[in-house]
Amino acid sequence: MSDWINRPLSEIYMAFQEERLTPEALIDEAIARYEKWEPMLKAYKTWNNESSVKQAEYASQTLKAGKATSLLTGIPLSVKDIYGVAGFPIYAGSPKKLPEIWSNDGALIGSVRKKVPVITGKTHTVEFAFGGLGTNPHWGTPRNPWDANQHRVPGGSSSGAGVSLWQGSALIAFGTDTGGSVRVPASMTGTVGLKTTKNRWSTNLITRLSSSFDTPGILAKSVEDIAYGFASIDPETLDREASVVRPKEINNVKIGITKDYFWDKCANDIATEVDKFISNLSSMGATTIPIEMKEVYPAVELWSEGSIVASEGYEFLQTNLPDWIQTLDPNVANRLEVAKKAKTIDYIKALEKLSTLSAIIWNKLDAVDVLAIPTVPISPPMLSDVTDPKDYSEKNILALSNTMPINTLGLCAISIPIGKDKFGMPVGLQLVTLPDREESLIAVALGIEKKYGTPIEQFGTPPLGGNL
Amino acid sequence: MSDWINRPLSEIYMAFQEERLTPEALIDEAIARYEKWEPMLKAYKTWNNESSVKQAEYASQTLKAGKATSLLTGIPLSVKDIYGVAGFPIYAGSPKKLPEIWSNDGALIGSVRKKVPVITGKTHTVEFAFGGLGTNPHWGTPRNPWDANQHRVPGGSSSGAGVSLWQGSALIAFGTDTGGSVRVPASMTGTVGLKTTKNRWSTNLITRLSSSFDTPGILAKSVEDIAYGFASIDPETLDREASVVRPKEINNVKIGITKDYFWDKCANDIATEVDKFISNLSSMGATTIPIEMKEVYPAVELWSEGSIVASEGYEFLQTNLPDWIQTLDPNVANRLEVAKKAKTIDYIKALEKLSTLSAIIWNKLDAVDVLAIPTVPISPPMLSDVTDPKDYSEKNILALSNTMPINTLGLCAISIPIGKDKFGMPVGLQLVTLPDREESLIAVALGIEKKYGTPIEQFGTPPLGGNL
Repeated sequence: MSDWINRPLSEIYMAFQEERLTPEALIDEAIARYEKWEPMLKAYKTWNNESSVKQAEYASQTLKAGKATSLLTGIPLSVKDIYGVAGFPIYAGSPKKLPEIWSNDGALIGSVRKKVPVITGKTHTVEFAFGGLGTNPHWGTPRNPWDANQHRVPGGSSSGAGVSLWQGSALIAFGTDTGGSVRVPASMTGTVGLKTTKNRWSTNLITRLSSSFDTPGILAKSVEDIAYGFASIDPETLDREASVVRPKEINNVKIGITKDYFWDKCANDIATEVDKFISNLSSMGATTIPIEMKEVYPAVELWSEGSIVASEGYEFLQTNLPDWIQTLDPNVANRLEVAKKAKTIDYIKALEKLSTLSAIIWNKLDAVDVLAIPTVPISPPMLSDVTDPKDYSEKNILALSNTMPINTLGLCAISIPIGKDKFGMPVGLQLVTLPDREESLIAVALGIEKKYGTPIEQFGTPPLGGNL
Repeated sequence: MSDWINRPLSEIYMAFQEERLTPEALIDEAIARYEKWEPMLKAYKTWNNESSVKQAEYASQTLKAGKATSLLTGIPLSVKDIYGVAGFPIYAGSPKKLPEIWSNDGALIGSVRKKVPVITGKTHTVEFAFGGLGTNPHWGTPRNPWDANQHRVPGGSSSGAGVSLWQGSALIAFGTDTGGSVRVPASMTGTVGLKTTKNRWSTNLITRLSSSFDTPGILAKSVEDIAYGFASIDPETLDREASVVRPKEINNVKIGITKDYFWDKCANDIATEVDKFISNLSSMGATTIPIEMKEVYPAVELWSEGSIVASEGYEFLQTNLPDWIQTLDPNVANRLEVAKKAKTIDYIKALEKLSTLSAIIWNKLDAVDVLAIPTVPISPPMLSDVTDPKDYSEKNILALSNTMPINTLGLCAISIPIGKDKFGMPVGLQLVTLPDREESLIAVALGIEKKYGTPIEQFGTPPLGGNL
């Protein structure tokens, strides 16, 4: 069997067009990969061979009928199990199935569905997406494929998303990002993760964690694949090859660098990797521009001062899924507890202050193409190191500490793999830019990938998954 | 002296273009009218003859230089004293001047300023805009010009706005509407009031009552003038005569009518007037379509259940103007009190439920051009009837009861004068439509005005103000 699953989406698209490959053959490959690796990696809560094969056949017919105007026709996609997806049960990481209404396509998946992709299944998630490490006591924690000896966490809350990519069962993985839940698993699994701007992609029929910060996003094995996926999924972009973002040459890029906040908690080995990489970009012609960003400190405090996410998440459960509250993972329940006593004035004050701080930061970042910072300041912990709730809490806060302020400040961002930490685990570089500048963000990341090669070209595939 | 002030804006615009009238002559008229009527009507907190004359001279030069591309060049405008306006102190209805930052043009006034109008002054307002009757214990309550014998309230919170129009000191009056504060004074003073869609016009540097519901709006003496003003002020519309909305013929209009809610508290004489008017529209060829609107009942309850406006207003004062809290009008302070104990979850729940109800109502209203309902279900009370806080509270709730749900449901609306109540006071018809359909709203109102004549043509000018 050939290895199309590790090829770029652009090549698969061409192969489909030229009838050198069929969606049926591609899904067979994905199924074989799933069957080999799922017992060890555990990416999926729900997987459906039969449905995948049927979708692939329909995609095949669509391609043959010449109606294949979409870049995603016939492409295997995995979807985080907090999205409503027709034909699939949904658990949102909880112990029991959610009501039937949640087994419908929401606005985003509904529009993707029209492109006739193959939705392979629903990937594991932290319960109701409230956590950054990827753990789940009800259904188990997917295994990070980069450590063959230890069960390290894959990052979360989109915990199965990155794993499904290396497993080889999907080429694009849908996740969501409220405080880092797309970028953290991307960074920890050595994949690329795009966190979109708030309100650019609909959160309709995705279980809500935070109405203020929830954003859908995608993970893929290369920036090129993200660019392909983005062109097809983004409602403001024409789903054509010609619309796929082109790379921006490194020597035309202005990179913002900052000494504030994002390095404070960063492990030495990770800080060194990221710093070296940015210096390298600079020596290759990128202009680096120091930016003072002291506003990030209060922006981080306001997340908890206003109990913003806890209150929004808890209200969602109380109103929509009250019977799911009792059985919550204690690591989730503990952090929702503050919502019960939270005061409206503190909540409004926090949101208003964030809006003021955001305006200041947007103004500063307007001077550069991207800000470059580490995505996650710590190595992916071993599962055994976060069983104690106190350890969990400490590591969870650290894992999200560099991504969460990007949400509170209303920005968009991408994480790309740029090296390895002292445990041989992937290190991510986070590129950040102003709201609704996803295209420019992807262009810069593509420019970097063009120079350095894709993650697979640079780092190979992980010891677990990666091939048959 | 001629009476340009009571002429339509379109005629004044033409007269400026053809040099039959100058901004200086127009402002002289406005000043004379102000001087005659202000002692009795008390529309303004701040008025500035000298500034007005200078602005008129500058407008004159602009017109002569042929740079007059705006419909509002040289036109006297009054602005509610909760807007920041450069060159004017701001009190927001409070006893003391606000900090200097509030004496700058915000985004909306800044863009209007570029059109070289004449900003005559700052009109009275309920303290921080939190009230529907127009009362203010610190600076007095403007007098409703339609009752020569009794001091009746002018409606609020934009209490000086409608009065300034009849006084003859302004042709467009800027107000704001959180629960009816543009439409209520328009209805009570027999003027036309446009409440714009949330976020269509910026609230930057307008003191905040409610971040969820505050909307800027305008009042004028006819729909035609509103159409002129709208074309010039609206950021999405080209400020040209050709962009002024054209009337929609009555027999092409689909009017939604409902038995739910909006008639429940309506005084008989007012209900009869509005009902008769709608029947008349129907007999003139408009199609009336009954709409069931039971969602309005919970939408009204949620305003208080979530303490939405009280919390947002109180937080604004606490954060930005803490020293202004102690001296608040008791009628304002009483209603802000609930904010102190309000719980975040209730607030979020209310906003989420409103969002769900709004979607249902939008869907229903999509079947018609406008919904037609009474603007205010009671006659403008005499000032002496609302001195007791309990009486005030009761009448205030009634005055806002038909306008407030339009804000909570995210709609836009216009109020037009259509008759007189049993006290000879004006009665307003409220036309309501989906968000961002201001143009279609104005077109319907223009069609009605074309058939019935302008308010002045139908009802003449009020006994106070109206002429020199």
